[in-house]
Amino acid sequence: MAQKPSIPKGTRDFGQLEMARRNYIFDTIRSVFGLYGFQQIETPAMENIGTLMGKYGEEGDKLLFRIQNSGEKAASAPEKGLRYDLTVPFARYVVQHREEIAFPFKRFQIQPVWRADRPQKGRYREFYQCDVDVIGSDSLIGELELIQIVEEVYRRLGIRVCLHINNRKILAGIAEVIGAPDKIVDITVAIDKLDKIGVEAVNAELKERGLSDEQVEALQPILNLNGSTLEKLTALKTILATSEIGLKGVAEMEEIFSLVEATTSSLERVKSSARSDAQWSSVEPSGEGFSIDLDLCLARGLNYYTGAIFEVKALDAQIGSITGGGRYDNLTGIFGLPNVSGVGISFGADRIYDVLTELNLFPAALQSSTQVLFAAFGQDELRYALRWAKELRANGIAVEVYPEPAKMKKQMGYADTKQIPFVAIVGGDEMAQNKVMLKNMTSGEQKLVELGELVKLLNC
Amino acid sequence: MAQKPSIPKGTRDFGQLEMARRNYIFDTIRSVFGLYGFQQIETPAMENIGTLMGKYGEEGDKLLFRIQNSGEKAASAPEKGLRYDLTVPFARYVVQHREEIAFPFKRFQIQPVWRADRPQKGRYREFYQCDVDVIGSDSLIGELELIQIVEEVYRRLGIRVCLHINNRKILAGIAEVIGAPDKIVDITVAIDKLDKIGVEAVNAELKERGLSDEQVEALQPILNLNGSTLEKLTALKTILATSEIGLKGVAEMEEIFSLVEATTSSLERVKSSARSDAQWSSVEPSGEGFSIDLDLCLARGLNYYTGAIFEVKALDAQIGSITGGGRYDNLTGIFGLPNVSGVGISFGADRIYDVLTELNLFPAALQSSTQVLFAAFGQDELRYALRWAKELRANGIAVEVYPEPAKMKKQMGYADTKQIPFVAIVGGDEMAQNKVMLKNMTSGEQKLVELGELVKLLNC
Repeated sequence: MAQKPSIPKGTRDFGQLEMARRNYIFDTIRSVFGLYGFQQIETPAMENIGTLMGKYGEEGDKLLFRIQNSGEKAASAPEKGLRYDLTVPFARYVVQHREEIAFPFKRFQIQPVWRADRPQKGRYREFYQCDVDVIGSDSLIGELELIQIVEEVYRRLGIRVCLHINNRKILAGIAEVIGAPDKIVDITVAIDKLDKIGVEAVNAELKERGLSDEQVEALQPILNLNGSTLEKLTALKTILATSEIGLKGVAEMEEIFSLVEATTSSLERVKSSARSDAQWSSVEPSGEGFSIDLDLCLARGLNYYTGAIFEVKALDAQIGSITGGGRYDNLTGIFGLPNVSGVGISFGADRIYDVLTELNLFPAALQSSTQVLFAAFGQDELRYALRWAKELRANGIAVEVYPEPAKMKKQMGYADTKQIPFVAIVGGDEMAQNKVMLKNMTSGEQKLVELGELVKLLNC
Repeated sequence: MAQKPSIPKGTRDFGQLEMARRNYIFDTIRSVFGLYGFQQIETPAMENIGTLMGKYGEEGDKLLFRIQNSGEKAASAPEKGLRYDLTVPFARYVVQHREEIAFPFKRFQIQPVWRADRPQKGRYREFYQCDVDVIGSDSLIGELELIQIVEEVYRRLGIRVCLHINNRKILAGIAEVIGAPDKIVDITVAIDKLDKIGVEAVNAELKERGLSDEQVEALQPILNLNGSTLEKLTALKTILATSEIGLKGVAEMEEIFSLVEATTSSLERVKSSARSDAQWSSVEPSGEGFSIDLDLCLARGLNYYTGAIFEVKALDAQIGSITGGGRYDNLTGIFGLPNVSGVGISFGADRIYDVLTELNLFPAALQSSTQVLFAAFGQDELRYALRWAKELRANGIAVEVYPEPAKMKKQMGYADTKQIPFVAIVGGDEMAQNKVMLKNMTSGEQKLVELGELVKLLNC
């Protein structure tokens, strides 16, 4: 036999079980998006190269996959590139279709993106992104709804999470009050690493990046801020008293927490306050698998965020952020439509998949969609099985008929491999009685059943 | 403002309504596939260029989109190309994963493909294919199940169709008995056009393609064959008496029609025979929107078919084939795994979309997923609305809250544009009574309702 064919490095085939599991994740997310009126769009895999170039920094430009048209002469065909993320195509979409869109525009998008990154464990050249955004409104109800969506998605998936939240305006205020307003990027990049490398290393990095000893010193109260959300925000109001933008950031956070509180039922609040002295008990609205943490060390790399920023971490798995995003004020400016504010988050499907696998949280039913396999002893039995199968399918039951009267061992082996829970065996005796011998593949039990019984049994 | 951004020619953005409609088509197809135990797989958008080249003929090679990696030197990176169809990647998948696969392997795949074709009306450079195949069994139950799937998918979509069926072995037999076995491709290409160009033009083309007058003459009884399915097959047995392969093809068709008949309930048969004298009344099993036609002029262009071939046409729209496929014996041979028989069909999503649009068959509910929009007069009312929204969503109802207390006209306009059927208006009076003013956007009727009433009303 020839050498086995293969696929490009960094890409993946998804088999049936992986697809069932991926669809479970996407369907869960999609149905929660639907409850909030977000609607799906899709954009082409390829964009004009001008749409993509210069949007992801110099490094990003290098990671674009470019497309050549075999048939056309290179010079005559306008250059194209594969979608690198969903954000830039979304911005392009909004500008291109702005006259058809009802603002505020609530859209989600679940599509693959491609990056010519060096492939490594957990990093692929083709992977799905799953983005949800509301654009064309600066109401903080956008932030509230995204928080509620995060809570509901992870509740449905059974993953306990903490949503870390911060605000770029607070970070800008901090840079301002320590006298280094031009260093905001350096400061955020450094303090973003606080969790990973610790305060000493962060301070060293800040100095390397050009902050004076005094400036680093001035930053320490913020790096060490703790207490309840209310306490942190109160302290910040003092620290940022001279920074207009900083105070604006604090006010936004107060409003967001107040909206979360306003939509938390009194029952949930009672549950939560029983376990916490914090004033804004609503930071743990569900009291169980979901909490919100005002995390002043959260910065997120992307430059276009201008308000709230989010990152979600699974409590029971060490895997980094599984969802993240934030508020931006000028996403569409690059395509000539300035001053459109929006807020959005992105669910990391691959990481969510890994968390669900690690914590063994995928429903067992995803193993097989087929509820029963018909195994027949001969051609007549096969036709008999086909008639039963038709009836069962008309009742919404997923059925397979093994297509040949093969050895019973082979047919059973097929059911085993596909993890089909029941096999309906058809021989001459069963046909004579107008029944099938139903075998439970888990318990091994067998019993003769009529068609009506079988429908009832499988419809449970 | 800068020039509006655009997308590459031959590609499309799909807005919310288009996406809802496309998802309706794919979800319908997917759920029917599921009833038969077909499971979804996905393959990467890019394949190694060697996997694709030479698989689609010289023309196809020219239509491949090739991918360049911006960062890598052209020489160091193995060449890649975008998926041109789902068939070749599927064959590659089967060979690559043959040790993990349980045969017969029933898979479906719904993904975009890319072709550098000249874009024109109805022909795109990026479009979805939707393929379903069973591979690793030569049982004609494969053909039966695909016929049943076609019937059920179009029944659910409400499209009346005729499934045209033929067999490549019969076509080979015909070439053999007229003494032109090497001309089978020329013969099938020519008679494939019978519907479009008529018998005279087909005869002329056959002569151009090198058939003698006698050979063309010998072909006439076949081109003019009519009557019931049984009559056609009986006549063919005489015509093809000296061709082993031809008789094999006839036997396969007899078996397929017999399987369809065996799985057609007596009730359906009674209904059907009341309107037809044909013996195999099962050719119209549902008696309504579905019929099967043994069509000896059906050839289909692709060379790899070796048995039954299918094409489905909508009865009420002039749009060509909306589903097609057939039996192949050597799909995986190109990748070194010979003698694996399979049968598959492909649903043409774009054409199905056009038929549903033309016949106005899309469910109206696809217009909006949101059932009610909350429109508030002020900030307090907004918080009140957010609490109600949370309750409704907990009951599975899709809700939006207009994120600002904007002018009522603006909020109503938003509901209109998004075709949201109800608006819940919240002012001070409504809050005082613990109610909302519910406006039916179709009838214009308004009434005060409590939360429980609203849940009941929207859950219907």
